[in-house]
Amino acid sequence: MGDFSDELRPAEPQGPGILAKERSRSNINVDKLARHLLHRDGFLERQERILKIIENRPYFSKRNQLNLARPDRYHLSLARSKELRRLALEHNWDSEDYGMASRLVGEVSPYAIHTVMFMTSIREQADEEQYNEWWPRTQSWEIIGCYGQTELGHGSNVRGIETIAKYNSETKDFTIHSPTLTAAKWWNGSLGRTANHAIIVAQLLLPDRNGRYKSYGPHQFVAQIRDMKTNKPLEGIVIGDIGAKVGYAGMDNGYMLFKNFKIPHKALLSKYTRVTIDGTYIQPANPAIVYGSMTFVRASIIMNARMTLARATTIAVRYLSIRHQFVDRDEPDKPERAVLDYPSVQIRILPLVAATYALHYTGEAMSSLYWETRADIEKNGDLSRLAELHAASSGLKAACTIITADGSEICRRALGGHGFSGASGMIPLNTDNLDSPTVEGDSWMISQQTAAYLLKRMTSAVSGKSSEPMDSQFIAYLKDRSSVANYDIYDKEEDIVRAFKDRVSYLSYKLYERRIVQKHSWTDLMVELHRLAIVHSEAILVENFYEAVFKGNITPAVEGTAIPVLQDLFRLFSLTTIDSRTTEFLLSGGLSVQQLQALTPTILELMKKIRPHAVKLVDAWSIPDYLLDSALGRQDGDVYNAMWRRAHLENPLNIQTFNPDFRTEEIVIGEGAENARKRVEKLALGVYGHEQRDCERSKL
Amino acid sequence: MGDFSDELRPAEPQGPGILAKERSRSNINVDKLARHLLHRDGFLERQERILKIIENRPYFSKRNQLNLARPDRYHLSLARSKELRRLALEHNWDSEDYGMASRLVGEVSPYAIHTVMFMTSIREQADEEQYNEWWPRTQSWEIIGCYGQTELGHGSNVRGIETIAKYNSETKDFTIHSPTLTAAKWWNGSLGRTANHAIIVAQLLLPDRNGRYKSYGPHQFVAQIRDMKTNKPLEGIVIGDIGAKVGYAGMDNGYMLFKNFKIPHKALLSKYTRVTIDGTYIQPANPAIVYGSMTFVRASIIMNARMTLARATTIAVRYLSIRHQFVDRDEPDKPERAVLDYPSVQIRILPLVAATYALHYTGEAMSSLYWETRADIEKNGDLSRLAELHAASSGLKAACTIITADGSEICRRALGGHGFSGASGMIPLNTDNLDSPTVEGDSWMISQQTAAYLLKRMTSAVSGKSSEPMDSQFIAYLKDRSSVANYDIYDKEEDIVRAFKDRVSYLSYKLYERRIVQKHSWTDLMVELHRLAIVHSEAILVENFYEAVFKGNITPAVEGTAIPVLQDLFRLFSLTTIDSRTTEFLLSGGLSVQQLQALTPTILELMKKIRPHAVKLVDAWSIPDYLLDSALGRQDGDVYNAMWRRAHLENPLNIQTFNPDFRTEEIVIGEGAENARKRVEKLALGVYGHEQRDCERSKL
Repeated sequence: MGDFSDELRPAEPQGPGILAKERSRSNINVDKLARHLLHRDGFLERQERILKIIENRPYFSKRNQLNLARPDRYHLSLARSKELRRLALEHNWDSEDYGMASRLVGEVSPYAIHTVMFMTSIREQADEEQYNEWWPRTQSWEIIGCYGQTELGHGSNVRGIETIAKYNSETKDFTIHSPTLTAAKWWNGSLGRTANHAIIVAQLLLPDRNGRYKSYGPHQFVAQIRDMKTNKPLEGIVIGDIGAKVGYAGMDNGYMLFKNFKIPHKALLSKYTRVTIDGTYIQPANPAIVYGSMTFVRASIIMNARMTLARATTIAVRYLSIRHQFVDRDEPDKPERAVLDYPSVQIRILPLVAATYALHYTGEAMSSLYWETRADIEKNGDLSRLAELHAASSGLKAACTIITADGSEICRRALGGHGFSGASGMIPLNTDNLDSPTVEGDSWMISQQTAAYLLKRMTSAVSGKSSEPMDSQFIAYLKDRSSVANYDIYDKEEDIVRAFKDRVSYLSYKLYERRIVQKHSWTDLMVELHRLAIVHSEAILVENFYEAVFKGNITPAVEGTAIPVLQDLFRLFSLTTIDSRTTEFLLSGGLSVQQLQALTPTILELMKKIRPHAVKLVDAWSIPDYLLDSALGRQDGDVYNAMWRRAHLENPLNIQTFNPDFRTEEIVIGEGAENARKRVEKLALGVYGHEQRDCERSKL
Repeated sequence: MGDFSDELRPAEPQGPGILAKERSRSNINVDKLARHLLHRDGFLERQERILKIIENRPYFSKRNQLNLARPDRYHLSLARSKELRRLALEHNWDSEDYGMASRLVGEVSPYAIHTVMFMTSIREQADEEQYNEWWPRTQSWEIIGCYGQTELGHGSNVRGIETIAKYNSETKDFTIHSPTLTAAKWWNGSLGRTANHAIIVAQLLLPDRNGRYKSYGPHQFVAQIRDMKTNKPLEGIVIGDIGAKVGYAGMDNGYMLFKNFKIPHKALLSKYTRVTIDGTYIQPANPAIVYGSMTFVRASIIMNARMTLARATTIAVRYLSIRHQFVDRDEPDKPERAVLDYPSVQIRILPLVAATYALHYTGEAMSSLYWETRADIEKNGDLSRLAELHAASSGLKAACTIITADGSEICRRALGGHGFSGASGMIPLNTDNLDSPTVEGDSWMISQQTAAYLLKRMTSAVSGKSSEPMDSQFIAYLKDRSSVANYDIYDKEEDIVRAFKDRVSYLSYKLYERRIVQKHSWTDLMVELHRLAIVHSEAILVENFYEAVFKGNITPAVEGTAIPVLQDLFRLFSLTTIDSRTTEFLLSGGLSVQQLQALTPTILELMKKIRPHAVKLVDAWSIPDYLLDSALGRQDGDVYNAMWRRAHLENPLNIQTFNPDFRTEEIVIGEGAENARKRVEKLALGVYGHEQRDCERSKL
């Protein structure tokens, strides 16, 4: 049965017509551009194939998920994860297919740590015997694993974790123990309610000849933590989920405490490090390999960051083209204008469209570099580029995740009121992706690794030695650093790249003076060290973007019709980055105060040129409606009908009728005051500690 | 029954001891500083009195609210609102008491629009007869009202709303009608499930002598919308809640459509505008009054913004003092350092501590100015300062809400991993306060009003006329604009203020040239117009801060022991504001490129001086633990025990045990596969349209 709203349509012009017009006024070939951007691993074909399988299955409907209580989100997420695993077997998915399915579902699964970190530890840290014991059961998902590293009291500083693993050379076993409450494992994904096995990171304590224990630092152990039948924690372990948080509603981030929990000698993962059966420590062979895989993780983080930002800009560009608001102050008789036509909106969105492309080309370059470096190592043991690659990836992880996290909130705010709506699709985008500046190395911390590398290179350059590519840049700068460069950033793109590089050289030299010459403490220099890392990353982003769209140094080649637009995006990204902080460009002599005058006018001109291509530039990222889950950002532009449907037909709050009269405690009409009071009190107070602990406590 | 975790304590040093030490090393008298900051309307006494009444009542427990489904949050919020109203009657609360109670509960109530916007409309827009009809029933809460202005298709541009109110001079009534779906009232708080009455904003259509209708623009009507017994919508109306959104879970933001819904002639609120019974339009008398109350609302927004930022900085400063992580790179044998001791953390937090004070002194100044201006108007009809006040309040609303929204996310990220936890207290802080840059005038839009005012003043100054305070500043600048000022921002605070003012004059003149001389279109200048408004607001913030802490132009006087610290906070706020965008300081000649060198070192020195006072500087805002609802930010510093309690004793997800095996659809252990499947499908799909519409649809 309908009501009179069924007859109503949105006011003209309709969204679909507007988007069709937007698409017709740009000559970019979206299909070709999409294939240029998403050429890796058959991405587009895979996305289409997997999408068909999952999008209409009931468990994978996203319709109700923003209405669910957090415990119910976990129930749903676990059910989805199990179904995905069954589908993977049914359709014979490889790991890329499975990854695509998880990406499209768009929430972090309670199996996520099993498939990534647990499997990685077994594969890369287990010795042959351990691998043979654990891999088949891990690979078949007979056991579900998690990764227990961070603790209540220690996150970033892994060396400070308190959990101990004490070896007893008589009983040939380790005792895992939590000496304090802050030693509780904390935040570990999949641990809270799901996993029955864990990698446990603990301080390895070995006795010397006199039986005195010495710490060898954090090591990884593998152990069963829950009963395979009841899924209750084993004796000597207390486990649980840590509770509500920003995003990740379907993931059971957990806590875990140990009381003298025994695990066998063979539980210590021993591919690199070993402890002999009598308790002697054997050093790891080649720690550099660890750097390599960290770099790979960080390259993937950049690629994910660009796709997250692409989601945000897709929603923003499409909706802000469709949304019309206000008439032009100088032309009051014309119809309302598309919001994206206002420069005050363009300045927030179009530089972010440019940033998605900037991140993309650097993600591509980092991936290629990673594989090349890996080949060099495997072929001839050549580790020479590893330090540079590691330094670049640390700073870029920091810079790119900040660009994306800040950028997606800028997009949300630009949407105006509807940006707050669940129908915007921005809620999971922001809450489930805001963690990227923090996890896998807090951005303010890992940036120090980049700065330390640059300081080392500058020290080498000052002494006249040159062994890495960065050194020659520094040596050239040192020769000529008194003169003002006067780069022509408005007409020569290569001058833009030079200005960014000079800024790196300038700051590196300044910090060389402070740290190496004047011996300032490292801590006192942290603000500038972070700045240096960001500045270096921006130089890399600008250079890779330049190489791809001006020099054609990219495979597959940039799509022809898009070239001039991508070149303008390069200019927009570079100039807005300069504009956001001019100080060090001025101090390094790359820019004069007079040149600042033209920055804003040039940026405004560029945005006018880019504006007609905006919709196609986001279309090229090929993000399906199912993933976007956004009434505002729909591919077809039918924004207002979709918003209406979500509110009027899909909101469970509208099923009940309420009693607004304060003189009665009744809430739902007809339930009566007493029933309401009991029900609401339970909502407010939740469960009590004793109830809960009776269910879940470990048997002592 | 306990478990072995009961015996465990956090590692040393304990939070309470750390905070005690922090507090002992600053000589600031917190009580006196608190009374200086919160002197208005007996704030501190009121807070203590109201807190005692509500904090231990079951409905007001915040323990479980982050675990609730959005519909349940509304149930709880409605129950709390009704209880608050009963408490208000029982304890004879005045409106300030009631406001304090709402603030402490910390969520937006479904009654919020009744107590603010509905009551305001009746009080300020109703003529005497209407007032007598509506006020008693409104004031007694016999009826619950909401405010229906924005629509699906129109938010910021009120002139563009589509709902019409057509007067029929024969039947002497208005027909309210929604011609399209985008005409649906949308986002209106309290409308979704609660209110039985509404202010309806609609285009007033009156027939001319020939019966042709002409629009007189948006006007306010008051009408009943739901049945007083059943609380179902009246015939000809479709209403509902719009669904999940960012924050505001307890508020029923709603939608409403009309189909030829009749309301009587007297429904048009007629204090200023009237329509005679035969359909003749009578102009409003004095539209300037509206400006005045908008200014008041904006002054309150600044005061709220400073308190929101104070909440965020309270959590950040306390937790980051307690959290210890990493050893100093140059002193590897010392214990781990407090995170707040790292300059890379200070640079994110301490400027925000300074910003809370900056916002405070400008909020104070704006409130005083508002009351003075109002007195001038009432005494002698003197409207001369109204334009200046309105312009200042628009820009400041934009600037201050952006400082707070960005700042509270900066605080959250600085908390590291635990910043994502519900135990941080940051979730409601961010989600329920992020709307401030958007509501009550989008920050990017209302800033144009400020810029338009400054352009007008500059035009007047160029022609040599001076009628407002701003004019003399501009005239002085015009006399001398070729010379470089070379201000001594590092040693003379008055030079800092001058540099900020010069920047306003410089940008105003630039825009005068572009807009007035060169006739650029307004739209093309929007980016720079926004910039001008922000720059002007920053000058006001800096000047009011300076006047309060250096000139003592504030009542009650700044607390003595705090004066030198507040003066350093002034310097820190000013210099970090300069550092965040130096461009226009350089272009306006207030600063030289050489001077930029000293910015970062000076900022670092200031932070070292402020650091020992950080905890007391946030303590002074006197935010009770009940409002903070943060394990990290607790007044007593017992962070880790509180986090443990929340996770291990209060998380409902830990009551159930789950089946992680993908080979079965069972989710909760023991429920069986079939039960699980049905249950989870319902979670995923939610309610269906037809179910819902059977309950809630309007009878046609």
